[in-house]
Amino acid sequence: MQNISDMFHAQSVAVVGASANPDKMGHTILHNIIAGGYRGMIFPVNPRGGDILGYPSYPSIVDIPHPVDLVVIVVPAPFVPDIIEQAGRINVKGIIIITGGFREIGNDALDAEVMNLARGYGIPVVGPNCQGVNYTPNKLCASWPLITAKGPIAVISQSGTIGAAISMWAEKDEIGISAFVSLGNRSDVSEIDLMYFFAEDEETRCIALNIEGVSDGKRFIDCIRKIADVKPIIVLKPGRSPEGQRAAESHTKAIGGDDAVFDALCRQFNLIRAYDLDEFYDLCKLAAFISSPMGNNLAVITSSGGSGILAVDAAVENGLKIPKLSDESISKLKEILPSQCVISNPLDLTGDALADRYSDALEVLRSDCTFDTFLVIFGDPIPDTAEVFLELMEKSEKKFIVSYLGGGDVEESEKNALHRISIPVFPTPERAVKAISAIQKYYERKDEKKDEV
Amino acid sequence: MQNISDMFHAQSVAVVGASANPDKMGHTILHNIIAGGYRGMIFPVNPRGGDILGYPSYPSIVDIPHPVDLVVIVVPAPFVPDIIEQAGRINVKGIIIITGGFREIGNDALDAEVMNLARGYGIPVVGPNCQGVNYTPNKLCASWPLITAKGPIAVISQSGTIGAAISMWAEKDEIGISAFVSLGNRSDVSEIDLMYFFAEDEETRCIALNIEGVSDGKRFIDCIRKIADVKPIIVLKPGRSPEGQRAAESHTKAIGGDDAVFDALCRQFNLIRAYDLDEFYDLCKLAAFISSPMGNNLAVITSSGGSGILAVDAAVENGLKIPKLSDESISKLKEILPSQCVISNPLDLTGDALADRYSDALEVLRSDCTFDTFLVIFGDPIPDTAEVFLELMEKSEKKFIVSYLGGGDVEESEKNALHRISIPVFPTPERAVKAISAIQKYYERKDEKKDEV
Repeated sequence: MQNISDMFHAQSVAVVGASANPDKMGHTILHNIIAGGYRGMIFPVNPRGGDILGYPSYPSIVDIPHPVDLVVIVVPAPFVPDIIEQAGRINVKGIIIITGGFREIGNDALDAEVMNLARGYGIPVVGPNCQGVNYTPNKLCASWPLITAKGPIAVISQSGTIGAAISMWAEKDEIGISAFVSLGNRSDVSEIDLMYFFAEDEETRCIALNIEGVSDGKRFIDCIRKIADVKPIIVLKPGRSPEGQRAAESHTKAIGGDDAVFDALCRQFNLIRAYDLDEFYDLCKLAAFISSPMGNNLAVITSSGGSGILAVDAAVENGLKIPKLSDESISKLKEILPSQCVISNPLDLTGDALADRYSDALEVLRSDCTFDTFLVIFGDPIPDTAEVFLELMEKSEKKFIVSYLGGGDVEESEKNALHRISIPVFPTPERAVKAISAIQKYYERKDEKKDEV
Repeated sequence: MQNISDMFHAQSVAVVGASANPDKMGHTILHNIIAGGYRGMIFPVNPRGGDILGYPSYPSIVDIPHPVDLVVIVVPAPFVPDIIEQAGRINVKGIIIITGGFREIGNDALDAEVMNLARGYGIPVVGPNCQGVNYTPNKLCASWPLITAKGPIAVISQSGTIGAAISMWAEKDEIGISAFVSLGNRSDVSEIDLMYFFAEDEETRCIALNIEGVSDGKRFIDCIRKIADVKPIIVLKPGRSPEGQRAAESHTKAIGGDDAVFDALCRQFNLIRAYDLDEFYDLCKLAAFISSPMGNNLAVITSSGGSGILAVDAAVENGLKIPKLSDESISKLKEILPSQCVISNPLDLTGDALADRYSDALEVLRSDCTFDTFLVIFGDPIPDTAEVFLELMEKSEKKFIVSYLGGGDVEESEKNALHRISIPVFPTPERAVKAISAIQKYYERKDEKKDEV
């Protein structure tokens, strides 16, 4: 396998087809590299010459008087082979081909020509026909949309839109991504190469994988056998239905194979499968924050009785338990909580609860050995919720997962404040519970496999 | 049944317990009535006297020198019976008791005393222990949160938080609500009275019902038998699991009954059941915009191949069909669309599609008689999407449902622009498809029942 690490850690980038025209892709890519805060050298390449976005341009990459680590290509497909030749001559370490017009429209010969050239020089290629690469630890957004929030999720995506949606949600939620790699035709660098890279990447805590089919069944199984228990891999593989599979084949020539087989693979090798886009993001979010088993016993603390019941139904339906509080917890809570509170599991702190009532309750419950994990529901615009957890997290190994709803503008800022202290927040109790169930199963299977060894 | 219509259309409101202190509920309620733009007369009642929020206050409601239609009570429970007496003497038309401390904490006697008094005077009472009433056609927000966006959804909710969440989402999405009624203990006015009212209310197109149990089984069945086919009723009834039902009983003393029985009732009488909070809102949103059958054949038009496949899987899994385009449609589309487009169902307009390419494609497809309904996916930050539909809606009876994702800030403004022209927008393709399937089933059952008659 090529050393794709050098591509992510490139110290200099050339954009071939860079443009001053904001309508052109060659403008977007150059702009995003600059606006993303890239610290390495940036070389626009355009035969017309002159400055582009404040950087002097060069007629071709061979004219650049410095070493070039990464070449991003946005010029039309017929020009691509020549650029690969040039890249080979100046020893670049990686190539991203944004340009379309290859295998995806039946132009297999051009695809093969380009890949043979690149392989001859030993240069790894992402694409063609892709949305580029964003690696936030290197502030290298050779992609779109412009995402600068650095975080723990590495997004590998066949669909540019799905990858972009996850990345944008993670940025808006102040969670961030370590990377977004758009696979495109994946004529060279595949999801497998990337999974190996991110498994070792210290900036990545979990991998979000969107594929419509695997590039190489044997290598894929070998890869997930080795790394699925190293870092959680959350996979969204549409084309479950025969109709969906036909659509996937027209989209990316992917042969999805029998979905039941893929599903069995996921179970056997401990991939975490998401079945829709919301769930894909939810599971990534929880895996980004929680890195050990949560147990199956859930304590629910809420200011909204109705929302607590939503959580209980979802827990039971997803294989979690809502055990009773210990007698000791109950008597302590009765002492400290106002009389209208409903002291049970779920614990209803009622609608006038502020952050301090949550702190008081959790201070008691953290000693209740039945529970490792607390689902804390804020069902009103309650401020200062991060302070509830800051102290607790110092004193306790327990896990805290939040659902915040019914809070309007307060909700938005509190959610982000909680994410900044590594407390995952979900928009509904049910989504929180489903994520807890799926990630908990991942850790259970991981432990079982350890026992088998 | 009392005439609760007068309460919603009240021409004057007294707030008993109005306060200048922003931390008090009596401040929030008065503030929201004023800030909501209420045009009727507003009377703060507080024995301390003086102006409150710019309105002269009165020591009691009997001192108000004008007719009072609606009395909102926020003073402590022991004072409530006296105020009901006074309200009876001055012939008010409705009472909302926000105050808690009644049946929900075991104080059944006080609850009964208050209700007997009110019934003696023939005054309908909402609550006690509730979050109030907001009726946007009368700009009467005697409730919190402050919601002013007038729209087609009437929210009847046992849980204040769930009702508030739906209302806030509808406001943020520029869909709006006709009403939010918080049931509280529903000691007098019940979900049944309210469903009858909203079934006749011209401002209401669909009813969002969140209950943990029905107040009166026989009346409930009678009610839904009469009105479920008049307007779509979307119901979220948690407490499906035995554990959830126990929690519901502690929360609102609701006896949920066997969930399978309720589920059968929903099917028999054509209630639209939602199983989680996201779905509850999604179904309300679609029912607010779509008021006739959509058919089971879905055409999917997308700029994102991957998102199209998500839609296809979800369609197949939810009983919808993705039939082939007609030969005529295919040959016309081949003529007008760029060569990289994938001409099939889903129709992939590819990532550089702008609004005009959607217009061109939909102009062809609206004549394809296989399809009544189009799921249009915008998978990139595409501007001016409302213009795609404005012209089409004039020329065509077809139904257009949108999923907009991967669009960042553009997505937010486009979504709202689409809602303003009555095109429903969903954040993921799967959520759009699930809503289409559920609302389509509602209209199918409605038609079947018509045939039986």
